[in-house]
Amino acid sequence: MEVVRNMKISTYLVLFVVALVCIPSLATAFEPKVVDTNPKLYCLGAVDPLPSWNEGSAKSAILNFVANITNKSNPDYVEPEERIATFDNDGTLLCEYPDIVQVRFMLDRVKDMAPDHPEWNNTEPFMSILSGKRFAASNFSINEIMRIYVATSSNLTPEEYISLARNWLNRSKDPHFARPYTECVYKPMLELLSYLRTEGFKVYIVTGGDADFVRAFSEEVYGIPSEQVIGSAIKLKFIANDSSSSVVKLPEILVYNDGQVKAEEIQLTTGHPPIFAYGNSDGDIPMLQFATGGNRRGMGLLNHHDDSIREYAYDNDFSLGSLDKGLKMAGEWSWQVVSMKNDWKYIF
Amino acid sequence: MEVVRNMKISTYLVLFVVALVCIPSLATAFEPKVVDTNPKLYCLGAVDPLPSWNEGSAKSAILNFVANITNKSNPDYVEPEERIATFDNDGTLLCEYPDIVQVRFMLDRVKDMAPDHPEWNNTEPFMSILSGKRFAASNFSINEIMRIYVATSSNLTPEEYISLARNWLNRSKDPHFARPYTECVYKPMLELLSYLRTEGFKVYIVTGGDADFVRAFSEEVYGIPSEQVIGSAIKLKFIANDSSSSVVKLPEILVYNDGQVKAEEIQLTTGHPPIFAYGNSDGDIPMLQFATGGNRRGMGLLNHHDDSIREYAYDNDFSLGSLDKGLKMAGEWSWQVVSMKNDWKYIF
Repeated sequence: MEVVRNMKISTYLVLFVVALVCIPSLATAFEPKVVDTNPKLYCLGAVDPLPSWNEGSAKSAILNFVANITNKSNPDYVEPEERIATFDNDGTLLCEYPDIVQVRFMLDRVKDMAPDHPEWNNTEPFMSILSGKRFAASNFSINEIMRIYVATSSNLTPEEYISLARNWLNRSKDPHFARPYTECVYKPMLELLSYLRTEGFKVYIVTGGDADFVRAFSEEVYGIPSEQVIGSAIKLKFIANDSSSSVVKLPEILVYNDGQVKAEEIQLTTGHPPIFAYGNSDGDIPMLQFATGGNRRGMGLLNHHDDSIREYAYDNDFSLGSLDKGLKMAGEWSWQVVSMKNDWKYIF
Repeated sequence: MEVVRNMKISTYLVLFVVALVCIPSLATAFEPKVVDTNPKLYCLGAVDPLPSWNEGSAKSAILNFVANITNKSNPDYVEPEERIATFDNDGTLLCEYPDIVQVRFMLDRVKDMAPDHPEWNNTEPFMSILSGKRFAASNFSINEIMRIYVATSSNLTPEEYISLARNWLNRSKDPHFARPYTECVYKPMLELLSYLRTEGFKVYIVTGGDADFVRAFSEEVYGIPSEQVIGSAIKLKFIANDSSSSVVKLPEILVYNDGQVKAEEIQLTTGHPPIFAYGNSDGDIPMLQFATGGNRRGMGLLNHHDDSIREYAYDNDFSLGSLDKGLKMAGEWSWQVVSMKNDWKYIF
């Protein structure tokens, strides 16, 4: 009986200490997540935070980097407020090949909107979308893509636009993988997002896609809240009359968030350079340079789509997101090139 | 001895339960704070979260609003991701009269920079700053203020600019109150920021001032991290060469965050309208309309500077932030006009 009592006391003590030890992890772990690395177990060091990653240089580089910058006694220690992690979306977190999800949405929107736009039957690029002659991003110039983007994303409130995007995502499927687009997200990347959050990082999506399009699913799919999505944007206009108010998307691009604009927007929005930047195309190069350049000791990574069996193999042959310079610069800039074929145990 | 053991067990149990109960509050309470509403005590309901506010309609309106929107069984319940609270800075969180702190910084910068700009001796508005003829914001047109803003805030990295601002803040004092500007912040407002955070709000500063100027002290003084500061901004340019990279502020304004731009920037940055908006001048009207318009059940508040003894009494006689329309619209829009004289027990 004496022993039982002592055990009870110890049990309560252990529970109490575990609760206290886990509080810092729990503080960040409260964000909703898709992949749950149980923070209680993880903070006792019992769980591999990246189980879908094969053992190898990429995985160990990530684990070492995070261990170093979160260790107060390490010279590379970084305060939590500067632990900004930035991820490209298309091709980095989810499939972008052979066509970017938002482009598929835009092309479907043109067809849905056509009855109200009889002039589109005689106006390019809309005419050839409606006739079925052009049906993928690669059929259009970047200027044409921007015209389609503006035409299908304006004269709406952000709520209306997000609602349209959600409805479309709910009823559409990736034709190759025969599942919703929001299930064509990479499992190893979901684990990485979750791991970084648990380690006190503020995880941002920094996308060339429309910020509101990504916001339509970022919280549910990635556990990333709206305010941590930095993307391209349509100009807004605030309108108030009587006792009502709203913002409406104007037919004008405010920012096209690609290349060096990604670096500039990260600084403008967060007030910091990233310490961890992950992309998959040449448009992500400045973001990676911003994380790793000069006396910054950040980490840069690029997904290399080299798995023709489980996903796709493509580099510089994808007009909307080629990876060419990035592969050549990776050595000099000490970026990790992640082979989706070899470094990932699972793709989805 | 038996009793002592049982007491010990109960004590551990109580400690454990208290730790568990407090975890949700601690999750938000981990942000650094100036005013510490002890979350452990507060989550047991023992502490007034707004002790520097006099009992009255303003205080009870705030407490009721927060109680309703955080109560899941209340029809006005708002999910945590939509609990966006936006605060103007100058005149709302800290003194702005008779001159805005950033304008004082800019005028001192002109003097510091003058040796490298001999042309300023013959160029307005710099000439009359250097001669001492003009020495306050009210002496300049808004266009002149913008020229001074650009001249004193460009050709620097954000880090360099923030460092200059911090050094200036550390060595400068408000001449009337004879204390650092960062101590001329309103105690009731610090309590309110802290209270809203504890209740799961994401608290943003939405300022007409430069975002980086406010970031120089927002974390330390308000407990508001850089990424929750939305402000005016100078255009950035990303530069990378060899293995180094940086962003530099160009001599061009990217956004002047006042009036309806405040509402637009809140939507662009957070992806949501605010549910709680607090300002003190007509430039904050759209932000308040955005929080309270239409079928939104948000709360809007305006600080009324009516305390000529403890601070200042001014309305529409302050060129850089007059409050005129706002007072007239408050009734129709159901905004709380907070009398700094009557509603606040302490100013600082």
